[in-house]
Amino acid sequence: MNAFPFSLALSVYWEDTDAGGVVYHASYLRFLERARTEWFRSLGVFQSTLGAAHDLVFAIRSMSIEFRLPARLDDRLEVRVDAVRMGRASLHFRQSVWRQEAGRSELLLTAAVRAACLSASRFKPRVIPEHLRRLLPAEVARPERDKGSSRQEAKE
Amino acid sequence: MNAFPFSLALSVYWEDTDAGGVVYHASYLRFLERARTEWFRSLGVFQSTLGAAHDLVFAIRSMSIEFRLPARLDDRLEVRVDAVRMGRASLHFRQSVWRQEAGRSELLLTAAVRAACLSASRFKPRVIPEHLRRLLPAEVARPERDKGSSRQEAKE
Amino acid sequence: MNAFPFSLALSVYWEDTDAGGVVYHASYLRFLERARTEWFRSLGVFQSTLGAAHDLVFAIRSMSIEFRLPARLDDRLEVRVDAVRMGRASLHFRQSVWRQEAGRSELLLTAAVRAACLSASRFKPRVIPEHLRRLLPAEVARPERDKGSSRQEAKE
Amino acid sequence: MNAFPFSLALSVYWEDTDAGGVVYHASYLRFLERARTEWFRSLGVFQSTLGAAHDLVFAIRSMSIEFRLPARLDDRLEVRVDAVRMGRASLHFRQSVWRQEAGRSELLLTAAVRAACLSASRFKPRVIPEHLRRLLPAEVARPERDKGSSRQEAKE
Repeated sequence: MNAFPFSLALSVYWEDTDAGGVVYHASYLRFLERARTEWFRSLGVFQSTLGAAHDLVFAIRSMSIEFRLPARLDDRLEVRVDAVRMGRASLHFRQSVWRQEAGRSELLLTAAVRAACLSASRFKPRVIPEHLRRLLPAEVARPERDKGSSRQEAKE
Repeated sequence: MNAFPFSLALSVYWEDTDAGGVVYHASYLRFLERARTEWFRSLGVFQSTLGAAHDLVFAIRSMSIEFRLPARLDDRLEVRVDAVRMGRASLHFRQSVWRQEAGRSELLLTAAVRAACLSASRFKPRVIPEHLRRLLPAEVARPERDKGSSRQEAKE
Repeated sequence: MNAFPFSLALSVYWEDTDAGGVVYHASYLRFLERARTEWFRSLGVFQSTLGAAHDLVFAIRSMSIEFRLPARLDDRLEVRVDAVRMGRASLHFRQSVWRQEAGRSELLLTAAVRAACLSASRFKPRVIPEHLRRLLPAEVARPERDKGSSRQEAKE
Repeated sequence: MNAFPFSLALSVYWEDTDAGGVVYHASYLRFLERARTEWFRSLGVFQSTLGAAHDLVFAIRSMSIEFRLPARLDDRLEVRVDAVRMGRASLHFRQSVWRQEAGRSELLLTAAVRAACLSASRFKPRVIPEHLRRLLPAEVARPERDKGSSRQEAKE
């Protein structure tokens, strides 16, 4: 596997489950966000610094999630991040959660996530600054990369 | 306003917020679920009883969420539930979160949610039983209600 | 019952439970904090205003909790707050969580909580300002009230 | 450092923080529980198996926590577990949370935790079975180890 998509390994703890005996549906959003955070870090981007030094925050604007199979206590999960596109003020991810067991992977969840670049103090959209754009992988940072979704781009 | 859509009032506490100074995005899923739970209760359906007495659980299968404006500590929110359609083994909701302030409402979030009826013990799809179907509002319980999404129905 | 102790009613939702089938132990801390927040509000104190207008935040410094009986999905709980003492820069609470069922109350949890008054921007201890002290009930605001714990007071 | 105390490294994510800009106080209980879970795993004990195969669950009966310094977004934490004593149906831990930064450790929190061994199905106390007792470190499993707290033992 090459550097992309990025993935984070994690374990399911009591905190993540509910009385149905499986992982509570909102817990997966925490898992997805941890993986995006580690993806940022792998590029040298720390969100605490983005806020303090650059008045920037990435806030989730929309998510679409398919819950396919439930994870359970003690499961070992792999959370994948694929940054698929960058708009002027947005980042688009495809993510998935897999159960790792006995050497095989089982797909539990897929998600499409759009994050907006905002002023941390005013929560208004901001163009992603050049210093940040340069840190992101070339194939993401090129806005023209994904021709197929160029109409969607126009809406942002 | 008639009985539908149903709504639940709630307050934003510290637990719901994050270091960005606003409500953490996954917290809204907890709010949406509280409102669906209260909607069920308003129809006389208690999920603890569904599990214990009928081996039934409703699990989220997919969600699509638009985050429009952030909520903040001490905000008073109204979470709306509109059960739009019932499949053989699924319930479809439209939900929204509104900020209530000084007599006016501001839309913060919209969501489309699909819940699947499952065996609580085996987590396999189950047809929604007749005793439950009878409790749900007539316009939801009629599967043919929403002709426009009949193709989607076929996929379930 | 007179105004004190103050209490908040709430319901147990899926989000609060874990795969043991009962409320996750850390969820009770959220319940206790909601009740303290509502106690503050009942006195006209909004913590969002405390931070924005007065650079004040109350942070938990210590908690001692006894978990006696588990709460479960759909339980109706009552969370009580008794502000027992005010130090120069601290507030001391006794709290408890009760299950309400069929007209009777069952004690589930007791807690002793010490909150420190801090500068919201620097997280350093601050004397509770007079305007706030005046809002608190007289028997709490009198530091000499609880002679028995005066040695403990000296440590703050 | 010898095998004990055990420690777990983790990162602070958005999900753990609140609008005060620091880690929400109840989030530390999740951290402490993750570390106890990993301590169990390091001894070959999986709690999902304990429940399914032995009808056993360890539930928190009491906690006493001192919050000394706040953790923040992106902090690297070390959560320590020291199993200090085993009663007939209880396990006693001392735990602490440390910030790791630039090669030095800063103490953020200390906790004393008592977990009770219960029947997973009936939530009634159960003697810790011999097969489990044998897995625990010798100095913990010997009830007479900590003479100083023998009076406390009598209360259980």
